[in-house]
Amino acid sequence: MGFLCLLYPWSQVCEWREPEELAALLDLELRENGEPQHQLLQRIRDVAKYSVKTNHPRFFNQLFAGVDYHALTGRFLTEALNTSQYTYEVAPVFVLMEGEVLSKLRSLVGWAEGDGIFCPGGTMSNMYAMNVARYRAFPEVKLKGMWSLPRLAVFTSQQSHYSVMKAAAFQGIGTENVFKVKVDDRGCMIPEDLGETIELAKSQGAVPFFVHATSGTTVQGAFDPLEPIADICDRQGLWMHVDAAWGGSVLFSKEHKHLMRGVERADSVTWNPHKMMLTGLQCSAILLKDTTHLLKHCHSADAKYLFQQDKFYDTSLDTGDKSIQCGRKVDCLKLWLMWKAVGSKGLEEQNISSPFYLTYVFCFCSVEQPLFVNVCFWFIPPSLRGKENSPDYNDRLSKVAPVIKERMMKQGTMMLGYQPQGGRVNFFRMIVISPQLSHQDMSFCLNEIERLGNDL
Amino acid sequence: MGFLCLLYPWSQVCEWREPEELAALLDLELRENGEPQHQLLQRIRDVAKYSVKTNHPRFFNQLFAGVDYHALTGRFLTEALNTSQYTYEVAPVFVLMEGEVLSKLRSLVGWAEGDGIFCPGGTMSNMYAMNVARYRAFPEVKLKGMWSLPRLAVFTSQQSHYSVMKAAAFQGIGTENVFKVKVDDRGCMIPEDLGETIELAKSQGAVPFFVHATSGTTVQGAFDPLEPIADICDRQGLWMHVDAAWGGSVLFSKEHKHLMRGVERADSVTWNPHKMMLTGLQCSAILLKDTTHLLKHCHSADAKYLFQQDKFYDTSLDTGDKSIQCGRKVDCLKLWLMWKAVGSKGLEEQNISSPFYLTYVFCFCSVEQPLFVNVCFWFIPPSLRGKENSPDYNDRLSKVAPVIKERMMKQGTMMLGYQPQGGRVNFFRMIVISPQLSHQDMSFCLNEIERLGNDL
Repeated sequence: MGFLCLLYPWSQVCEWREPEELAALLDLELRENGEPQHQLLQRIRDVAKYSVKTNHPRFFNQLFAGVDYHALTGRFLTEALNTSQYTYEVAPVFVLMEGEVLSKLRSLVGWAEGDGIFCPGGTMSNMYAMNVARYRAFPEVKLKGMWSLPRLAVFTSQQSHYSVMKAAAFQGIGTENVFKVKVDDRGCMIPEDLGETIELAKSQGAVPFFVHATSGTTVQGAFDPLEPIADICDRQGLWMHVDAAWGGSVLFSKEHKHLMRGVERADSVTWNPHKMMLTGLQCSAILLKDTTHLLKHCHSADAKYLFQQDKFYDTSLDTGDKSIQCGRKVDCLKLWLMWKAVGSKGLEEQNISSPFYLTYVFCFCSVEQPLFVNVCFWFIPPSLRGKENSPDYNDRLSKVAPVIKERMMKQGTMMLGYQPQGGRVNFFRMIVISPQLSHQDMSFCLNEIERLGNDL
Repeated sequence: MGFLCLLYPWSQVCEWREPEELAALLDLELRENGEPQHQLLQRIRDVAKYSVKTNHPRFFNQLFAGVDYHALTGRFLTEALNTSQYTYEVAPVFVLMEGEVLSKLRSLVGWAEGDGIFCPGGTMSNMYAMNVARYRAFPEVKLKGMWSLPRLAVFTSQQSHYSVMKAAAFQGIGTENVFKVKVDDRGCMIPEDLGETIELAKSQGAVPFFVHATSGTTVQGAFDPLEPIADICDRQGLWMHVDAAWGGSVLFSKEHKHLMRGVERADSVTWNPHKMMLTGLQCSAILLKDTTHLLKHCHSADAKYLFQQDKFYDTSLDTGDKSIQCGRKVDCLKLWLMWKAVGSKGLEEQNISSPFYLTYVFCFCSVEQPLFVNVCFWFIPPSLRGKENSPDYNDRLSKVAPVIKERMMKQGTMMLGYQPQGGRVNFFRMIVISPQLSHQDMSFCLNEIERLGNDL
């Protein structure tokens, strides 16, 4: 196969090319006639060469990174077997396997029973939660649409993922009906403000139905305090969803699972093993505490050509009607195989303890230890040091990260992200995931930023 | 890698096991500790052994089948490179490649320009169409939700895919606001009835905004008449969507593209190359005629950590805000690579002409030639022959297909589907896709049904 050579550590994280130049290099155009074998092989080499090496230890840019070879084997096998995860008939192995994996993930949440399904990404999982919550509160919405309902209100923190807004827009709820709850300095939702915001929404005539808490925010890696949020949801009778797309994997760790204390009180949890568990894209689960088949009642369309009721086996195994998709890619095998290979203990060690430890060491001298593996910082170039009080300080500082980012991309030495947030101007966000990462890689990162930004 | 052995023609299409037995055979349970290498290898062999061989020539069960080795290479490469299709920064090759593939698909539809994106499956693509159509008609819906809108109405044929219902439920429109238009004997929408149904909806106070036509229905493979439907949409100012998830690939064929005459008049088209083009799941495109960035305006959430506006390259290359997802799997490479390998001409020959020809030969003696590659038929067992007029004929006939299906699954000789439809009791649906299919396989199918059902 020869593909594994693509995974061998490259010297560079990326080989930056301007779009026009890259398009020409790749000769992307599709034509009437095909190409000879040797040319196709060159195409494949070029695709790999100019793609970002997300497996490279110095790829700190997204909430995914690194490679797990067991998971990769599972992905290759999934591709070779090419089936769809909707009926036991065409996916007997994967229907049962998905059930086992979901059940095990639920047990880490703290639920002995429940429901769930793998979705194409965390945003879709979050959308499932919002839709099932709406259906529980107002089952008539499926048939009659939103006109039969009062104006609804959704609550989430100022630093939650933008998928809440996408969900509200897509599902006809409207983004102005998403009420943003204040966060503290570390990015965690302030429960008192949640209570007040709920009252505010009610005073405007909206009907609260859904609280979207976050375990592991995208930028700061903050964990909302789930216990007090659950208290409020209990009192108000609201669906409590925990978006743990990023943070959920701490549940594997005896040492760090306290970050999600209270998660078992939620109604639903989004968890993306394609992030910290390194399964590879896509692997996202929506987990539900519900045992009344809400997921199926909410999403079913009973297609007769697929879910025949006169089948010779137990048709409750046909999970397709839980999904809003029809054909659905098999996403469980990669996670199952890596879990089989190293066990829960091995996953805890390699996927959770190791990046936490590296982050700890890396930030040892910093003013504030990060709660999670998101390392956020400014690089203050020599020209700005000691100038914190000058009126154009923030303006000048905001221009530093974009320039350093451009230089690191063009030299291909590493990749990390930056963004402004709230009142803070552009700062770097370095995500520590890959178990292939060494102390050297971490200190390289600091030295490299210094080298790239020293003249600024 | 050794995976290719999984693709070598197996003697059986499936190795049926009862769920309890299969769960035990696979030893699915995930434990604290990992397993040694030789046991993992056995797990992989078992996963392959008990999975349905959708690559087997006698797998006629779904709207996907067969294998294309260039596409499979593209899928392995996609897995190895593991990136997300949202920014040029992390997916430079695939952002440009997706653009080229979408542009080429659009040109087959007949559009020199337009927009589009790959989605996780046809249902999602259809949902995109409905959402963008709603946004064009009522841009305030994104902010305010459905309460600011009149009751909406959607139109589709009685035989359209169930995803229309799923979309209406998920997007808050409600399934009772999907108006079903009558079809003729062959399953094609009757345009006159569309006109009348629109008037009916209006008379009930609903506001029509979206017509969902189908090119290639799931069961019969019918193509709705697009020209007269387009005339009605033009007159009424409605968004015309063509769900060509299944049938779209006829656009590659000079001989068969007449089935979709008028498609260039549509506003949007769903097309799943993972069906007839054999790219492997998932590969589904939503194509739009629009050139005003509706897709982006409708779905954007402007996340600052991902789509920074002070980037050093043209940020219009960051396609993530066109999507309702955040992370998005790369689905274009497999199609691009097979297209590069054999060209449009090669795709026409191997993926379109060949299954059409096999279907033609197979159905040569039938009363009615199928329009497409869906072969629908009853097997009349000896005991029912000549009994068409007996009162329990339909009841007894309806039980034939399920029994034969059970027997073929348990013996693993082939797989095809069955379903009732409208007034027709259970009949077989055989889907002809795989270019690895021979005349022998086709006649085997008939003989095998005879063998399995002769005693019924």
